[in-house]
Amino acid sequence: MTKHYIPEAWAFEFHGHRCPFMPIGYRMGGLAMDYLGVEREKDHGFFVFPEIGKGHPQTCMVDGIQIATGATYGKVLMEKTYYGKLAATFYHPQKEAVRYALKPDFMDNMGKFEFFDYRKRGIEPSKIPNHITDDVIKWVFEQPDDTVFKVEPRPDFKFSPVKGSFNKAKCSICGEYVFERYLRQKDGKPVCIPCSGYGR
Amino acid sequence: MTKHYIPEAWAFEFHGHRCPFMPIGYRMGGLAMDYLGVEREKDHGFFVFPEIGKGHPQTCMVDGIQIATGATYGKVLMEKTYYGKLAATFYHPQKEAVRYALKPDFMDNMGKFEFFDYRKRGIEPSKIPNHITDDVIKWVFEQPDDTVFKVEPRPDFKFSPVKGSFNKAKCSICGEYVFERYLRQKDGKPVCIPCSGYGR
Repeated sequence: MTKHYIPEAWAFEFHGHRCPFMPIGYRMGGLAMDYLGVEREKDHGFFVFPEIGKGHPQTCMVDGIQIATGATYGKVLMEKTYYGKLAATFYHPQKEAVRYALKPDFMDNMGKFEFFDYRKRGIEPSKIPNHITDDVIKWVFEQPDDTVFKVEPRPDFKFSPVKGSFNKAKCSICGEYVFERYLRQKDGKPVCIPCSGYGR
Repeated sequence: MTKHYIPEAWAFEFHGHRCPFMPIGYRMGGLAMDYLGVEREKDHGFFVFPEIGKGHPQTCMVDGIQIATGATYGKVLMEKTYYGKLAATFYHPQKEAVRYALKPDFMDNMGKFEFFDYRKRGIEPSKIPNHITDDVIKWVFEQPDDTVFKVEPRPDFKFSPVKGSFNKAKCSICGEYVFERYLRQKDGKPVCIPCSGYGR
């Protein structure tokens, strides 16, 4: 595997622990960027839709994708689809979209590593002995890209980010600022969603 | 402001550009951790609910929160509420929750900086001259915590993460793995959500 797809030390610091999935996501993100011919996103122009959900393992992949692509959750460039799959679609407005997914055989082979025995016993990644974790990370690094990833162009994929606005107003009940899209009205006055009692 | 709340260089690298909001989120996260008496989260035990939404500025705050707390989107520890507010609730199961919000007066005063004239003209943060960006970042660093943040304990706040499972099965149509929670059934066979045609 080329060095280009190996995360730097700060990537592990951001993520919080060593595990195989953050590096897998980092590599997926790097490969997708190279496929599309785009650079790491500095601002707000590259979108990623990971298919993970909640209540399942291996979601750490998504932190690797944030780190590699710069399409972060904070910049509103990433949104999970909640399909419960280890895959993601990468979309740049000037390019065609592409979807990367982990291959089932790769997942089966990786699942044999001792790291997962620990995880299934509920042991958190930071508590697993380093050599156990490093075994599986090293093995993943050694697998060729086309052993790990299924790649599909998605010419049909459509996405339009919502139109942004700087407008905001104070909630007439709590006094906090609310951006206009999320202002509601109650008794003729502007309110925030929690104060409205309307729910989302 | 204590040095403890100033992001390291890699934080800006992760985020992709210099702006005042990532550092504000970083400080908010650090203050909330100190308030609760918790360390940066290595694994999966600390949850943050930012109140930002889409289609509005200043969401970059949320990357700073990920960086400071380790409660990342990839580890399924962070979920936006889509209230369109610059606030977040921090929840640790062994502690009481706390909510931090930016004060309206602080937002008004910050909004006078030239940085926002550029942003309102649609100029992306990475294209704004450094001295303009650094002016507002420096000013924010100089503001005392209680000028910037409103702090509210939230003893009423409840959250239970869903029970996790490692179970997965292959979709009988596309052959990809799906974690059990997201498997659907069609013609008596297990399928993934996209192949089911059912929608989420």
